[in-house]
Order: sequence, then structure tokens, then C-alpha cells
Amino acid sequence: MATKRIELIGVTGLPEITPGDDLTRLFLDACRRENVSIVDGDVVVFTQKIVSKAEGCVVRLSDVEPSMLAHTIAERGEGGSKPTCGKDPRLVELALREARRIVRMDHGVLITETRHGFVCANSGVDASNVGADDVATTLPRDPDSSAQRLRDAIGVATEKRVGVIISDTFGRPWREGVVNVAIGIAGLSALCDYRGRVDNDGRSLTSTVIAVADELAGAAELVMGKLERIPVAVVRGFDLVPGADGARALVRDAARDLFR
Amino acid sequence: MATKRIELIGVTGLPEITPGDDLTRLFLDACRRENVSIVDGDVVVFTQKIVSKAEGCVVRLSDVEPSMLAHTIAERGEGGSKPTCGKDPRLVELALREARRIVRMDHGVLITETRHGFVCANSGVDASNVGADDVATTLPRDPDSSAQRLRDAIGVATEKRVGVIISDTFGRPWREGVVNVAIGIAGLSALCDYRGRVDNDGRSLTSTVIAVADELAGAAELVMGKLERIPVAVVRGFDLVPGADGARALVRDAARDLFR
Repeated sequence: MATKRIELIGVTGLPEITPGDDLTRLFLDACRRENVSIVDGDVVVFTQKIVSKAEGCVVRLSDVEPSMLAHTIAERGEGGSKPTCGKDPRLVELALREARRIVRMDHGVLITETRHGFVCANSGVDASNVGADDVATTLPRDPDSSAQRLRDAIGVATEKRVGVIISDTFGRPWREGVVNVAIGIAGLSALCDYRGRVDNDGRSLTSTVIAVADELAGAAELVMGKLERIPVAVVRGFDLVPGADGARALVRDAARDLFR
Repeated sequence: MATKRIELIGVTGLPEITPGDDLTRLFLDACRRENVSIVDGDVVVFTQKIVSKAEGCVVRLSDVEPSMLAHTIAERGEGGSKPTCGKDPRLVELALREARRIVRMDHGVLITETRHGFVCANSGVDASNVGADDVATTLPRDPDSSAQRLRDAIGVATEKRVGVIISDTFGRPWREGVVNVAIGIAGLSALCDYRGRVDNDGRSLTSTVIAVADELAGAAELVMGKLERIPVAVVRGFDLVPGADGARALVRDAARDLFR
């Protein structure tokens, strides 16, 4: 069997993104400058931040009037390892507005369920790296559709069939640190299902469904880096399974979730 | 800025591992056959399964007498998306013996806290791919030490300074599918701490600690594949931060954990 190789390519040189920007064009321009030619089967991973910015999911904090609840949560945010939205009550207010449920609110952490069903800190509201000092980004309204639009546009511009993932860094219960995960997916299956298949010993692998889209997002983060301006990565050589299930397929149904 | 590239290399051609095998030698032999030369800074990711097998963390199921609790849990295992240890009461018994706490026991899922502090399904007990039909593997007793031994042995054999990760696939609350994570680490820091550093806009990134070892494990899984015999991968080009914190640094302290 030949050695299996995958390449992770961080695409540098994108400008600061602002609402209305054509992300596909800016990405492909950067690829051209860096001599990265897109090929069939590439998976292009965009950070949520630039997709949100391009789509105008940006809120001026001076326009946000925090509720009493937001003030209270922000004040209690002291001492946690992940301060609640940087303890700014306006950011907490935004997180509450983006939430359809509060999952936990303790130890200076605000864990919510977003409109999409994602469970994450502060509803994915983010104040870092947004250009001006007093703005925050919210998650794209429909990240699977955003991914599909990017995929279509890349397809039109390059005539290549790619997969697209929109990623964000989420915390996890039980484990320290955040990891990059997929919040929007187009052109590839989110999950790789080994159930019913047979392993080397003829035993069926009954419980193995791998969240490959999350692994791809995590892999992409390794070439991104928060402090360098690398908001897009290309994963080349991954044997993607076509699919249209989207990142919504990664959201566990609340009825089957033991920790919601 | 130059384009950042990382390569993931799945190392094929390792034989079936049995207790007492010299994993380093078998890995390096396979590398030689596949023309993969280890270089300084490579991160070598071994699946838990082969490390457990080499270390003799293998239990014959015919030697396991299930307790009443194990029988009860196994019987209730019907209908869940992840059947409890394949509903074999002997596997459930092993999972209970490997646990220091039961975190959840519902919907056909048994989530435990292992001796190491990892929270995962069935204490990491695994019956697939173990050679004979009636054996199971348990997690290495001290996976950080196992990783250190592998790192030292690779260093002696190749004169290269590498990082080593021992990985296993764990489920997550809220999200479908399992992802590969780090359960043992040597020669690199588990976490990349951006706190206090300043982003493009001069805003400090207060809450960003990235679990790079988990992202590296996930990336490695993309070239492994459960059905092919690729139990080791090399991650090349990752700018690792030296560290000795081990995978134990990834275990969130129970007092600060909102979901334990």
C-alpha cells in the first residue's frame, strides 16, 4: 500500500476583510500570489471570523445596550479561566441575543446553545481581530449556506470541485484548550461512517463514526495561527466523501445528548 | 510571509503488534520501507491500540467475570447510537474496572472517568482490531510515560528530536462523531497559549489557549483510517513548542469542570 499523504497549506496575504467583500476573489488572489493552485478535491477551510465579516455579521458595541442579566453575568465573570466575553457586558448581551438556550453559566464561563444548535462559549461572539476596537462578530446566520456559496464561487472561478469548511475554535468539557471545529460545510460529508464495515479481524466496527470535518478544521488550524494573518487553509490529498449533510449533521440531537 | 505548509504522512506496513513488540523498531522499519526519513521536529502519532498491545494492555475476555452491574448495563445498552461496549457484559466489566468514576450511564452509553482523568466512552476499552476474537485492549497505564519512552527510543535510533503523541478516538458532548485526541504526549507542549499576546488590532487574546496536541492527533487520523492498517502517522512542518506538560495538561481539573 502506498504511503498516504495530506498537505496543509496556510494561505497568507489576505487583506483585512470588511462587510461586502468578495471572499472568494480575495482568497483566490492570495492563492495566486502565493503560487497555490486549487485542485479537485481540495478542502478549503475559512475561519468564521472572515466569513462573518464579509457577510456583515459585525456589531458596533456602542450600539448595544446591555440588559440587567448581561451586567450581572459580566460582573460574575471574574476568576474564570475563560472570562465571560472579556467581562464586557455589551459582549455578554450580544452572546445572550445569539443564544436560544443557556447551557451553563458558572465559573466565569457562559456556555450557550446558538440558533444553529452549536453549544459553545458566548454563542460564538468574538471581539478579537475585528479591525476596529468597538466591534464584535457574531456567527454567520446559516454557515452551511455560506460554505455552499463559497464552494460554488470557487467552482465557477477555478472550474475545480472543492470542499469548503467554515471553522471556529470551540472549548470542550473535560479537556483544556479550544480546538478548531467545523460550523459550516459544503461539498463533503461531515461524518465518516465505519459502522457495519469489518476490521482486520472480521469484527464489525459498530461504534465508529468519525467527525472528519472537525478533524479537517483542527488540522487547518495548525497552519493558521491566531497572531499571523492566515484565515484560510487548504487541505490537499484528503480522500473526501461527497455529501450534503452539512455541519448541522454534527449537532447532536438534544434528546440524545447527555450533557445539554 | 511565506506560505505555511504541514505534511501528514500515514505510515503503512506495520505488522500486527503483540505484547512485547519493539514498537519503535517496527515503526522505523516501516518508515525505511516506505522511504519516510524522520527529521527533527516531526511529530509521530501512534494510535493507542498498538501502544496498548505492545505494552501488554490486552485482556482475554474469557478471563473476565462480569459483575451484576456490568450485566445490567450491558442489557440496557440496546438502542443507543453508541452501544455500550458492543453489549458484551465482559467488555462493560472491563470498562468499570478501568473507571474511577461513572460520569453518565444512559441512552446505551457508558461515559467514565479513567484513572488518568480522561472522560470517554467505556474507559477507552476497545474490542476491535486486536488480533484474536476474544480479547480487548485497555488504555496504557501512563500514556505520557509511554510517549516519552517512544520519543527517547526514536531519538536514540535516529538521532532526531521528535515529538510523540499517543492518540485515541473520543466522543464529545453536543457533537456527533468521534475525533482523535491526544492521551499521551512527549517532546511538545500540549497547549499553545496565546493569552496576553496581542492580535492584529492590539487587542489582547485573553481566552485563546489552543489544544494543539488534540489538533495534531485529529490531523493524523485523516491519514490513518480505521480499516487500513495505518496505526502511525508523521506530522511534518508543525512549529512545535517544546514542553513536558504531557496529556495530563489537557485534563480539566474536576473543580473547574462544569460537565463532570
